[in-house]
Amino acid sequence: MNETTPPSVSASSPSPAPAGGTLGVAVVGLGATTSTLLAGLSLIRQGKNEAVGSLTEMGEIDGVAIRDIVSLAELADLEFMAWDPYATNALEAARHARVLEGPMLDLVADDLAAVVARPAAFDQSWVSRLENTDNVISADTKMEQAEALIADLEDFKSRCDRVVVLWSASTEAYRPTSAAHLSPAAFELGLKENDPMIAPSQIYAYAAIRAGVGYINGSPNVSSEVPALLELADLNQVPLVGKDYKTGQTLMKTIVAPGIRSRRLGINGWFSTNILGNRDGEVLDDPENFRSKEVTKLGVLEDLLKPEEHPELYGDISHMVRINYYPPKGDDKEGWDQIDLFGWLGYPMQLKINFLCRDSILAAPVMLDLILFTDLAARAGLSGIQDWLSFYVKEPLVPAGSTPIHALADQEAMLFDALTEMRSA
Amino acid sequence: MNETTPPSVSASSPSPAPAGGTLGVAVVGLGATTSTLLAGLSLIRQGKNEAVGSLTEMGEIDGVAIRDIVSLAELADLEFMAWDPYATNALEAARHARVLEGPMLDLVADDLAAVVARPAAFDQSWVSRLENTDNVISADTKMEQAEALIADLEDFKSRCDRVVVLWSASTEAYRPTSAAHLSPAAFELGLKENDPMIAPSQIYAYAAIRAGVGYINGSPNVSSEVPALLELADLNQVPLVGKDYKTGQTLMKTIVAPGIRSRRLGINGWFSTNILGNRDGEVLDDPENFRSKEVTKLGVLEDLLKPEEHPELYGDISHMVRINYYPPKGDDKEGWDQIDLFGWLGYPMQLKINFLCRDSILAAPVMLDLILFTDLAARAGLSGIQDWLSFYVKEPLVPAGSTPIHALADQEAMLFDALTEMRSA
Amino acid sequence: MNETTPPSVSASSPSPAPAGGTLGVAVVGLGATTSTLLAGLSLIRQGKNEAVGSLTEMGEIDGVAIRDIVSLAELADLEFMAWDPYATNALEAARHARVLEGPMLDLVADDLAAVVARPAAFDQSWVSRLENTDNVISADTKMEQAEALIADLEDFKSRCDRVVVLWSASTEAYRPTSAAHLSPAAFELGLKENDPMIAPSQIYAYAAIRAGVGYINGSPNVSSEVPALLELADLNQVPLVGKDYKTGQTLMKTIVAPGIRSRRLGINGWFSTNILGNRDGEVLDDPENFRSKEVTKLGVLEDLLKPEEHPELYGDISHMVRINYYPPKGDDKEGWDQIDLFGWLGYPMQLKINFLCRDSILAAPVMLDLILFTDLAARAGLSGIQDWLSFYVKEPLVPAGSTPIHALADQEAMLFDALTEMRSA
Amino acid sequence: MNETTPPSVSASSPSPAPAGGTLGVAVVGLGATTSTLLAGLSLIRQGKNEAVGSLTEMGEIDGVAIRDIVSLAELADLEFMAWDPYATNALEAARHARVLEGPMLDLVADDLAAVVARPAAFDQSWVSRLENTDNVISADTKMEQAEALIADLEDFKSRCDRVVVLWSASTEAYRPTSAAHLSPAAFELGLKENDPMIAPSQIYAYAAIRAGVGYINGSPNVSSEVPALLELADLNQVPLVGKDYKTGQTLMKTIVAPGIRSRRLGINGWFSTNILGNRDGEVLDDPENFRSKEVTKLGVLEDLLKPEEHPELYGDISHMVRINYYPPKGDDKEGWDQIDLFGWLGYPMQLKINFLCRDSILAAPVMLDLILFTDLAARAGLSGIQDWLSFYVKEPLVPAGSTPIHALADQEAMLFDALTEMRSA
Repeated sequence: MNETTPPSVSASSPSPAPAGGTLGVAVVGLGATTSTLLAGLSLIRQGKNEAVGSLTEMGEIDGVAIRDIVSLAELADLEFMAWDPYATNALEAARHARVLEGPMLDLVADDLAAVVARPAAFDQSWVSRLENTDNVISADTKMEQAEALIADLEDFKSRCDRVVVLWSASTEAYRPTSAAHLSPAAFELGLKENDPMIAPSQIYAYAAIRAGVGYINGSPNVSSEVPALLELADLNQVPLVGKDYKTGQTLMKTIVAPGIRSRRLGINGWFSTNILGNRDGEVLDDPENFRSKEVTKLGVLEDLLKPEEHPELYGDISHMVRINYYPPKGDDKEGWDQIDLFGWLGYPMQLKINFLCRDSILAAPVMLDLILFTDLAARAGLSGIQDWLSFYVKEPLVPAGSTPIHALADQEAMLFDALTEMRSA
Repeated sequence: MNETTPPSVSASSPSPAPAGGTLGVAVVGLGATTSTLLAGLSLIRQGKNEAVGSLTEMGEIDGVAIRDIVSLAELADLEFMAWDPYATNALEAARHARVLEGPMLDLVADDLAAVVARPAAFDQSWVSRLENTDNVISADTKMEQAEALIADLEDFKSRCDRVVVLWSASTEAYRPTSAAHLSPAAFELGLKENDPMIAPSQIYAYAAIRAGVGYINGSPNVSSEVPALLELADLNQVPLVGKDYKTGQTLMKTIVAPGIRSRRLGINGWFSTNILGNRDGEVLDDPENFRSKEVTKLGVLEDLLKPEEHPELYGDISHMVRINYYPPKGDDKEGWDQIDLFGWLGYPMQLKINFLCRDSILAAPVMLDLILFTDLAARAGLSGIQDWLSFYVKEPLVPAGSTPIHALADQEAMLFDALTEMRSA
Repeated sequence: MNETTPPSVSASSPSPAPAGGTLGVAVVGLGATTSTLLAGLSLIRQGKNEAVGSLTEMGEIDGVAIRDIVSLAELADLEFMAWDPYATNALEAARHARVLEGPMLDLVADDLAAVVARPAAFDQSWVSRLENTDNVISADTKMEQAEALIADLEDFKSRCDRVVVLWSASTEAYRPTSAAHLSPAAFELGLKENDPMIAPSQIYAYAAIRAGVGYINGSPNVSSEVPALLELADLNQVPLVGKDYKTGQTLMKTIVAPGIRSRRLGINGWFSTNILGNRDGEVLDDPENFRSKEVTKLGVLEDLLKPEEHPELYGDISHMVRINYYPPKGDDKEGWDQIDLFGWLGYPMQLKINFLCRDSILAAPVMLDLILFTDLAARAGLSGIQDWLSFYVKEPLVPAGSTPIHALADQEAMLFDALTEMRSA
Repeated sequence: MNETTPPSVSASSPSPAPAGGTLGVAVVGLGATTSTLLAGLSLIRQGKNEAVGSLTEMGEIDGVAIRDIVSLAELADLEFMAWDPYATNALEAARHARVLEGPMLDLVADDLAAVVARPAAFDQSWVSRLENTDNVISADTKMEQAEALIADLEDFKSRCDRVVVLWSASTEAYRPTSAAHLSPAAFELGLKENDPMIAPSQIYAYAAIRAGVGYINGSPNVSSEVPALLELADLNQVPLVGKDYKTGQTLMKTIVAPGIRSRRLGINGWFSTNILGNRDGEVLDDPENFRSKEVTKLGVLEDLLKPEEHPELYGDISHMVRINYYPPKGDDKEGWDQIDLFGWLGYPMQLKINFLCRDSILAAPVMLDLILFTDLAARAGLSGIQDWLSFYVKEPLVPAGSTPIHALADQEAMLFDALTEMRSA
């Protein structure tokens, strides 16, 4: 805890503009997470539920509500639009996700039906398991796709006071950074020439940056963190947040591993397996897409345990992460962790953690907080990577030269320090 | 994390004397934990093992080893004596505990055989399951027992440069604080008149205080924290530390619950069951003795979750703790926790934690750290309750008016702050 | 498997009368299990569900459906009445149990509302946790209670072709067999003189026997198996079935333990803990009532493992059963079993079983089968204890001198043998 | 249970010759399982251990010890030889397996050191993870390898009264049956021409058959069950037994699944994951070799549940089996099964089984029983596939046209019937 790098926000001493007016939220992906977020917001606005899991609604620092420390958009002032490669709306998505049923779903039906999927920038080569899409932007080049998204955003901006873009769609295949990602010029040339290394998520990030609005990456995709987009974001003064919502097993890892390390108990192995049955699971069943996720998930332990400081305790860990598409779970998710510890005298011990959770339920409040805090960052004039929001993500993006912070308690401290610094005058 | 009270050490800005010379450790109880500590120290001194689980040996603050921040007794300078109501020695205790076997046990046999149990102050009415004791101080009054212990300590002090007393024996029956505990005079009268409300552990604490040496309570006994002994400790400038080593299930609770709360996930229930087969389990199988443990264990969650701040999330928790004496486990211990969570939309989720651990293995490094840090406190002139050592205990003793800190990360921060403040000039 | 005693049915070579006409089912207790049974039957009759878990509906022997082997009452021909100490009906009970919700509940609402609780023979001294009852037979003596029940049954018989009585109410306090239980005369005297040792469940059994209808005991109560009632049942040619539905943890025990024994793996310990939150759990939270359950549950392993044949494998088992009332579970139930095994070279191994189940869901098809098979027994002229139905119960009642069969596979063989023998001509 | 096919042994009414003299056991593979078997036998012969897990030593039928029903070789009369591609002996193998340690290992050291690996028929293309072998038969053709093995067996036969061959080595890569497997002539031509489709395990089976001794297949390899070898075995009157020792997760499956089916509870999914760290795990980490195992393991559920009889209960199961090489486990093995059930009203329930076991400990008594029973079969004049030994294997070989029996209770019944039929006159 003592070793957190000071958050990057501290240098600028920002003083954010107040949050009046409407905040437009443009979501990529109209599936279980997005519809669960919308259903919850509808019920909360009706006074029929509470924003469990959200710090913007339920958090406090030293007893003072976070909303009383910084000015945040009101839930009633949020406006949503969404892109999806299938012609659907949020009500259909909620029915399919089966989080809400019966009378509860009726209560939110109108609100959800109003959010209709706009045609998406989509390329099946990045998500081979998504077939028969019927709601894709028709365009000859990736640049034309980007222009269509920018037009959508400009239209949305004309109807809202401020806008943020949130990626909450499927994980793309893992492909390394290429030449097209190295500079704005190369990237824009790549868009025009349909460079196959440019991912749809990068087109969305580019569109958001061009439209001058913040971009949040809720998946493990390599997206806004390529040099070309980082440079553009700085030029356009756009905040970037990511990546990959920290929800189930990794959330537990960043809670438990720091405690084991605090006590200097040794670790021989950490075996993590997941079973999940939703579209996310189906997409990750493809090894190419799983690769993106695995990179994100495997890095966490190394950063948390710092084996270089204690090779005798953490220098030889078998860390395995498995994700299994297992249809009986539906949108539910289950993680099983087997942790092989050793203590005094090298004595072996075992810790087993079984987490029966639900992706969309854990993701929804994270999405809400990231939306409101990214809007806050924009109002505070912060641009580029916002590592003070590491609390919410599996693989925190950090400025070049920094090390990501993974321990949840340290991430919370960093978040609270940043908010305190942005305290409304 | 943001809400830790500043540790009580900060006011005094102590500058501890260096740790040269021998440190005598007088242990109450020569069972599995004590013999495991001794076996490990012997192997470490022989270069055949490492002090896994110990911060005094393996800890660092901002990359600087704790031993380079404060002056601590060398492991080679520790001398041990022990009291036990059974005529035994540490080698026999180790054989019975079966932590080490075969050739490894041979390596430490001589060191362990040298620690022979001295007659103990013992009263079966406080630990009904311990029968046929054969090594008990013969005395007419509790005061005579105390004088015998003090004589042991004075003799030990004459052979060592400094001394600390460590309770690592069985949990006593739970009895409330009574008139005899309210002032030094009442307590000493009670000792002379054999007041049945004075527990053996209180006699040890009294003896330590009278002998002017620090007292560490590794069990849930109501011991040095009664007003009479607190007042005497202040008068005699003796540090008091406790209580109840934080080892298995409660350790996990203080790691996991703060993470759940950080994310504002709700909790409906937390069911904790334990199975263990050693003498500790047998003693706790007696409802009177279990009561002491239960009081300690149940308080933790309430302090961690602060339901008064979030009654909608933590106001209605079924928290149950069960301890079962189950001989097949031997000295191994197994905890099973079932945690009923709820998230966004009130959706129920479950977290299950199964910890296969070993009491003595987890306790030994805690004992070592508490011994060395209590000695440090004494050299720093600190007296009374040492809450900066909360990191190691289930139920931290705190000065009147303070609230105990339970979250492991906050306890670590408090420990590191205190050590930094005691930094050797 | 080779050691099953031939079922007692075999001697009589019965040839049951066909099952035409209506079968009246008089249920003691209108709670979660009864309402779940009724809701399921209603949906099945509507073609909207299947009788999952029921052999009378889904079972076959050598490929022939059981219904084609023996003549069983049709589901459409079942008529229900119920007694309960609270003024309620099956719809209210279903709402409280929360098994069905929303539109599904609407589909069965009329059927359920029609089953209204008749006043019950009730005595709080046997179930201290049930307070504020408002629907109790008003009578001066237990004999008057019995007469009221008999009148109910005679009335029911006048409306149905045949009748069975099924106890599906709370577990009573454990009290040993007393003088009043030893002969019909003593029992009837006891009823008249309000002997405190006569339990309500025994009054129901007596009433059923007097009315000449079969009696099924779904709880661990000491009920129809006392000598007085056994003798009366023989006189009145009434079949008796019991006891205690085999549903969660014990079901698993009778599946798993025989397999371990078949392989001659040794067992050092079997620790079973249960958490459940319904009225059943609340009642069992009282040590007196838990005692009834514990007696039932502990006997199973001894019978299954036959330690006298293999003392070296099963002669020294720590078998513990814990039941915990834990409200967050509601009507859900969760068992956790820790089984300490040993194999070749005495090497220790562990098997851990975690069963997340639901009492009423597992009980309902057992109730259905027991109702239909008890009716079959009556039509076949079988009277007294029906041990061929051991498959369904935790503690099979057996004729004097017989040993109960617990292994599920052996119970199934015994059931199939009996049915084959009763094959319709 | 009612549906077992009569075991193939019944037709022949064999009357086995008595078991006097020495029984030579030629084992393929000198690793953890073989050395654990040998260590146990040594300790048992010294009276220092018991044959836990073995029916030949600890089993009885209707109270009569199996050894008193059929004549079996005495443990003192077993002689061992072994082939292994690494130059080792059983003592080294036991040290590496770390089942026995310290003084216990000393007790068996001489016996184990005496079993020295003879050069093996080995081909790395079938087990790519086994590198740097140093003890391989030097030969130009597979036929020459076979001849070398036959010479070993003839030599062994000259020193023993009877001989059996037991494959207890690594799982080979999965390759389908090819032309070379279809007739003895084609097979022998293939051996001479080094047909790449002929596996080493098939060469061992061929050698055993040619030498006229029984062959037991303890792995999932496609081995003696190809038409060519079946025909040869019939010609040479050799019994064949297999395949794949039923030890951990599959053993539990064949205990638990029949119980679930007996109760007609539905199954939506069964997810099985394994972690193991020994050479077996390493070999199975290769997808080609895992394929052999997966074929074996996946078939079990389908055979057990007979979805064609109950498509509404078992027609749509997600059955997944994962095996993970996870070094921290060493020779220990851990299975985690997540079973998604449904009951009355379609209500979902979950069963989770966590088995902490050890491959070699579970395999050793299975090996012993298979050795003694295969010898019995040979003495009884039984040849070809011995399906009455299905009790011990994951994928029972059965005569053409038969269906394998998987339920442990049914397999036990079949075993006991066969033994009863072979009862010594």
